[in-house]
Amino acid sequence: MSRTEAAPAQARGDLTERLLAGLPAEAVLTDPDVTASYAHDMASFCPAGAPAAVVLPRTVEQVQHVMRTATELRVPVVPQGARTGLSGAANASDGCIVLSLTRMDRILEISPVDRVAVVEPGVVNAALSRAVGEHGLFYPPDPSSWEMCTIGGNIGTASGGLCCVKYGVTAEYVLGLDVVLADGRLMSTGRRTAKGVAGYDLTRLFVGSEGSLGIVVRAVLALRPQPPRQLALAAEFASAAAACDAVCAIMAGGHVPALLELMDRTTVKAVNDLAHMGLPETTEALLLAAFDTPDPAADLAAVGALCEAAGATQVVPAEDAAESELLLQARRLSLPALEAVRGVTMIDDVCVPRSRLADLVEGVARIADRHRLTIGVVAHAGDGNTHPTVCFDAGDPEESRRARASFDEIMALGLELGGTITGEHGVGVLKKEWLAREIGPVGIEMQRAVKQAFDPLGILNPGKLF
Amino acid sequence: MSRTEAAPAQARGDLTERLLAGLPAEAVLTDPDVTASYAHDMASFCPAGAPAAVVLPRTVEQVQHVMRTATELRVPVVPQGARTGLSGAANASDGCIVLSLTRMDRILEISPVDRVAVVEPGVVNAALSRAVGEHGLFYPPDPSSWEMCTIGGNIGTASGGLCCVKYGVTAEYVLGLDVVLADGRLMSTGRRTAKGVAGYDLTRLFVGSEGSLGIVVRAVLALRPQPPRQLALAAEFASAAAACDAVCAIMAGGHVPALLELMDRTTVKAVNDLAHMGLPETTEALLLAAFDTPDPAADLAAVGALCEAAGATQVVPAEDAAESELLLQARRLSLPALEAVRGVTMIDDVCVPRSRLADLVEGVARIADRHRLTIGVVAHAGDGNTHPTVCFDAGDPEESRRARASFDEIMALGLELGGTITGEHGVGVLKKEWLAREIGPVGIEMQRAVKQAFDPLGILNPGKLF
Repeated sequence: MSRTEAAPAQARGDLTERLLAGLPAEAVLTDPDVTASYAHDMASFCPAGAPAAVVLPRTVEQVQHVMRTATELRVPVVPQGARTGLSGAANASDGCIVLSLTRMDRILEISPVDRVAVVEPGVVNAALSRAVGEHGLFYPPDPSSWEMCTIGGNIGTASGGLCCVKYGVTAEYVLGLDVVLADGRLMSTGRRTAKGVAGYDLTRLFVGSEGSLGIVVRAVLALRPQPPRQLALAAEFASAAAACDAVCAIMAGGHVPALLELMDRTTVKAVNDLAHMGLPETTEALLLAAFDTPDPAADLAAVGALCEAAGATQVVPAEDAAESELLLQARRLSLPALEAVRGVTMIDDVCVPRSRLADLVEGVARIADRHRLTIGVVAHAGDGNTHPTVCFDAGDPEESRRARASFDEIMALGLELGGTITGEHGVGVLKKEWLAREIGPVGIEMQRAVKQAFDPLGILNPGKLF
Repeated sequence: MSRTEAAPAQARGDLTERLLAGLPAEAVLTDPDVTASYAHDMASFCPAGAPAAVVLPRTVEQVQHVMRTATELRVPVVPQGARTGLSGAANASDGCIVLSLTRMDRILEISPVDRVAVVEPGVVNAALSRAVGEHGLFYPPDPSSWEMCTIGGNIGTASGGLCCVKYGVTAEYVLGLDVVLADGRLMSTGRRTAKGVAGYDLTRLFVGSEGSLGIVVRAVLALRPQPPRQLALAAEFASAAAACDAVCAIMAGGHVPALLELMDRTTVKAVNDLAHMGLPETTEALLLAAFDTPDPAADLAAVGALCEAAGATQVVPAEDAAESELLLQARRLSLPALEAVRGVTMIDDVCVPRSRLADLVEGVARIADRHRLTIGVVAHAGDGNTHPTVCFDAGDPEESRRARASFDEIMALGLELGGTITGEHGVGVLKKEWLAREIGPVGIEMQRAVKQAFDPLGILNPGKLF
């Protein structure tokens, strides 16, 4: 049976029976109407198949049973968290077992002395953030979907977020993992100590591997002390290039903002349309900077001066934490707001060296013009990580075609500028044709060799990444 | 030919001839008196063989030629930097090619806007630190050997240092690599952008792989803005346990020291004996804390109070940067000073969760008593990373035997306490028997599978790690 064809009824029956030998009935879903609801993550333009079954284990042993069964019957397994991913990495393939980790959602330990949390993969990011906050601790990675997305999904996709410019990405907070391998064996990687170099760093290999190397069933996460509350400013610019100049001046000047975000005019207008926030629509680009330092007002003053030197037409520091939170909220609403423009969006995720940020933003504007499309640019500007967001009407095939073409041209531009096709959303299905362009034939060959080492039968999330 | 036997003269002649086809004569050393000087790194108790040749390439193409030759003739290759490693990972094997990267020592680029440096592997750590410092930038990893050790060696061994407690280890500063594979092909990994998740994280796989997966010929390193100068304090304690309690209180209290180091009485005395520094020998444990924050005096006052609450008998803040530097210097002299005690040392490198630091330090004292040995403990206490340093007379076989036994017992204790056998020095030859104990049979099998994927002929630094 080809792995991309639907399993025949007989095989599906066998599979269900085998799964039920190690899982309670309520943990195995086979009604096609129900399983269909597990077919997709939040990416546009990514095909998805019909799962043969959805399993919802609560224990490591149950996950091991699922993988042993999958190995025995040669059935592909697609691991899933909250399906908030943006690259189709969690999309089902025909006849697969969807392995949802959402019920393994216990926080097993929080240690203020060791500054670690030990969690199951289904813990929601925001739930962990709040729980560690009660101990005066901080789990920095904060993807936009943080109220829904799971730690397991964050690990699988190597998620980023707003505060990466200061605190880095998910990968930097994963100290150790328990992983169920393709054949059902359990392996521990890494450590719970602050440091450790015993053997190859398999922990990091699993981070961002999109479920293609094994199933994460437990993670030891590094925590930080909770910083002071952020204070933010907004700076308006008459051109996106001037805003990017300000970003370069801020970073070259040795400042360490807790966030440094850019919203272009299209995005600002979309947010106002959606949420009536009264953001300044007369601007070409809005830069948001925030500091969580001991004296954020002083840092904001210095950064405000750099913005003015770069040509900011207005610099507005927030008066207090509430005003700062409002600015942040505007930024967090950018993607839903852009989605409302034409009904559907494709969110690109190109990261360039920040010295090339202006070139990217200007290039995206040219691509939008050429394709007669609205493309809003929001960016984790301090990291050079842009999300050019192509707005289009999915009911219009010709417009959809132009949307896809512009999406690809933006990636090509990113590579041309020395950047990457994905700063934080991953490859999944959406960009797998592009991975080879970025990393070249030798890179692809070695990536495949690693995949082969962990998953010789090719049952773990096949069709993703490569 | 077995890889551990010396190459017969004929084979050695063929090898030399083939190497000279792609390398200038001055880059190929075969005089056994000369090549013998490349046999060892700085680890005790690690066997080393006689190289067939030492090569000193200056270009990527020359490294590729070496690896193509090695593949063709099935000759093992041992990559080396400055040979300051402490686990024997750079030790030659009989008949091998020693591949010294020390002549590839150019800093190719330093970008303040992108906060990256691009370097060849032979750049000395201190040379890079000084060069980026001139741009107001900071390359944090600072192993004790920083004036000698190379970036390539730091990457191969995943080096740590004093400032890891705030700034992390080498791994966190490696964004991308150019690697020559076992068969001579060139592969690029990672990125020069701040973020990027395109494919498996092969960059991190190479960091700490001790030259067993490929030869790093170029690295893109992340930099930070230069922090303010450190201000330090010293706190004396009547017991090591009280000092460890202070460490826990400081870290649980949300403080972020730039270093937090512990020296026990044995170490303090040894440093005084070596360098007449006038450190207080009446103490059982000396804790050094330093801050590079905007207001270090305030942070030191808070930490000093926590030390006193934990039972410090005296807390002495440095008056200025010069006094702070003196304390740091005392710490940096600890290992040479302990070496002078009995002529030779075995430096262990056990890292435990910092909540178990006191248990480890006390356990080491029991082990020292039982074996009638002097074991000085210096520790990156803030990270729980201890260097119990066994002092012994290598001319006394019985004492040497007890030294080795105590060294192993310290690792066993570290594992028992939930720690790792190596926090920052690596596995190399010294601890390869112990790696399996730490990561278990499934872990070892998957580590070997990764090795097999990159080095199917087993020519890259064989006999290390496993």
